Amino acid sequence: MRIVDQRALPESHVERDLESGREVAEAIRTLQVRGAPLIGIAAAMGLVAGLRDRRTAARDAFLARLDELATLLGATRPTAVNLRWALDRMRAVARSTPGESPALWDRLRAEATAIWEEDRAMCRRIGEAGLPLVPDGANVLTHCNAGALATGGIGTALAPVYLAHEAGRKVHVFVNETRPVLQGARLTAWELAHAGIRCTVIVDGAAGSLMRAAQVDVVLVGADRIAANGDFANKIGTYSLAVLAKHHSVPFYCAAPSSTIDPAVPDGDGIPIERRSVEEVTVLAGKALAPVEAEVLNPAFDVTPARYVTGFLTDRGLVKPPFSR
Amino acid sequence: MRIVDQRALPESHVERDLESGREVAEAIRTLQVRGAPLIGIAAAMGLVAGLRDRRTAARDAFLARLDELATLLGATRPTAVNLRWALDRMRAVARSTPGESPALWDRLRAEATAIWEEDRAMCRRIGEAGLPLVPDGANVLTHCNAGALATGGIGTALAPVYLAHEAGRKVHVFVNETRPVLQGARLTAWELAHAGIRCTVIVDGAAGSLMRAAQVDVVLVGADRIAANGDFANKIGTYSLAVLAKHHSVPFYCAAPSSTIDPAVPDGDGIPIERRSVEEVTVLAGKALAPVEAEVLNPAFDVTPARYVTGFLTDRGLVKPPFSR
Repeated sequence: MRIVDQRALPESHVERDLESGREVAEAIRTLQVRGAPLIGIAAAMGLVAGLRDRRTAARDAFLARLDELATLLGATRPTAVNLRWALDRMRAVARSTPGESPALWDRLRAEATAIWEEDRAMCRRIGEAGLPLVPDGANVLTHCNAGALATGGIGTALAPVYLAHEAGRKVHVFVNETRPVLQGARLTAWELAHAGIRCTVIVDGAAGSLMRAAQVDVVLVGADRIAANGDFANKIGTYSLAVLAKHHSVPFYCAAPSSTIDPAVPDGDGIPIERRSVEEVTVLAGKALAPVEAEVLNPAFDVTPARYVTGFLTDRGLVKPPFSR
Repeated sequence: MRIVDQRALPESHVERDLESGREVAEAIRTLQVRGAPLIGIAAAMGLVAGLRDRRTAARDAFLARLDELATLLGATRPTAVNLRWALDRMRAVARSTPGESPALWDRLRAEATAIWEEDRAMCRRIGEAGLPLVPDGANVLTHCNAGALATGGIGTALAPVYLAHEAGRKVHVFVNETRPVLQGARLTAWELAHAGIRCTVIVDGAAGSLMRAAQVDVVLVGADRIAANGDFANKIGTYSLAVLAKHHSVPFYCAAPSSTIDPAVPDGDGIPIERRSVEEVTVLAGKALAPVEAEVLNPAFDVTPARYVTGFLTDRGLVKPPFSR
């Protein structure tokens, strides 16, 4: 399984071959591979990579190892539901496949490929659903990276932007840098610039005054998990952006594949929020940004209640809660 | 004139002796010395340092050089009004002082010292005005650095926190790291930790979800310039914070010495907003945070309209607009 190590962007483009389930789990945990849809795909492929050397084992041993690897991979990130969704799907398909380990492994490989291909198609449908929101001359604001680098296709929040660009429309994207890990500045700006789409990086604190100056036509963000009532978890800072958008009457859309919807969670209170290491906030490029004596809080995500969301762009079109899968 | 080079904090405590007006101007421009009240004090002292070798010149030559230096120092930062205020005051006092250059220089030195001492006293009075807002157990949220490092005394926004701590109250401060220059993480957390006051650094995007979780009792921020109608300029991100505070019914106070009020500017539209170099956003510790192809917008300040402000804490107590000096 070959990945682009996203930690190295934008300075260098590093590709890495992952050979085992453990390596894939480590890549997900350390954000070499990130973005809710992409970590679902990566986890499915991690199972395939990790079971490659068990193809000669008995069926029971193969399935037991599958469960072990799924547990390992599922524990890497708690917030995105796509991870669990992909792993559950892979386990179910293995169990329902008759025959011995080689047949099971072939089936899993096909299923992982299908998950990727479906994701690519879903991105395109999300883009089509959002295309009317990005007319010629539009100024979009986005947060974090919900683009091609976060998916198997053209992204979720950025999919309408890519399709608008493809259709010859002039689009400009304000990119929140997205502290602490700077996925906006590092990844979104990188992929937009490489696609020839004009973008402007701003610090997260500047979004409010841009909206006040009427420079933002629409806010497009992704999601790591959407509850049945439409509350959704996304990168820290999304909730602030949603409040600011509502306050300034700027339309605010959440874009995600249906696999992001978790009907088992009734509302946002049930979504677990990952707290990541304080060093993401306090250290950058080996430099201390805060004194060691200070405490640090680093919630990686926040929850935006459904009432702030103008609409959800999914592979089923523009939809509104409540959701069942 | 001896300064603490604030660029080196929190990693190292570097003191620097500035010998000329040009050195002081450079220190202000490059944020070695920052914070609206402190740059007013520094500019006044910069005139004294820069005129030290003109004490033997004729009165006219001395005054001409004073004007030159005031222009040089006044051009370093456009937004904070305290800078212009201090320089105007120094020029006026020189012109109204009879006698030759040595007498003028002595008078200027006394005036610069008076500006510092007044600032120290003003900070204390601001703290007293804000003390009732910080009861035992209070959770304060602040942005940027409006503390001791930004003034000649105990700060403006942090003055009520210092006095509450002095009075034996348990206080906790959430500190927005304040991108791009990270004055919150680097300076506010440093000075609070050194004073033994508990503080927690967060990324700027986390403030909204903290307010939603009812973890913030009051927001205290400083100001670089306050217009006659109460609109005020402060570090980029302040306006977003004000909208979030209003949305969550969290009291939002602006703390500043009266010299920050610019009655010549009727409202926020008249306050010039400094745009600083894009490298403040795109480079940290020599590491590129964004691709070179991306555009970057780096407004250093934003304007918060008066209607978002619960009250202004000044050396004249808790006041409301309109203001005349």
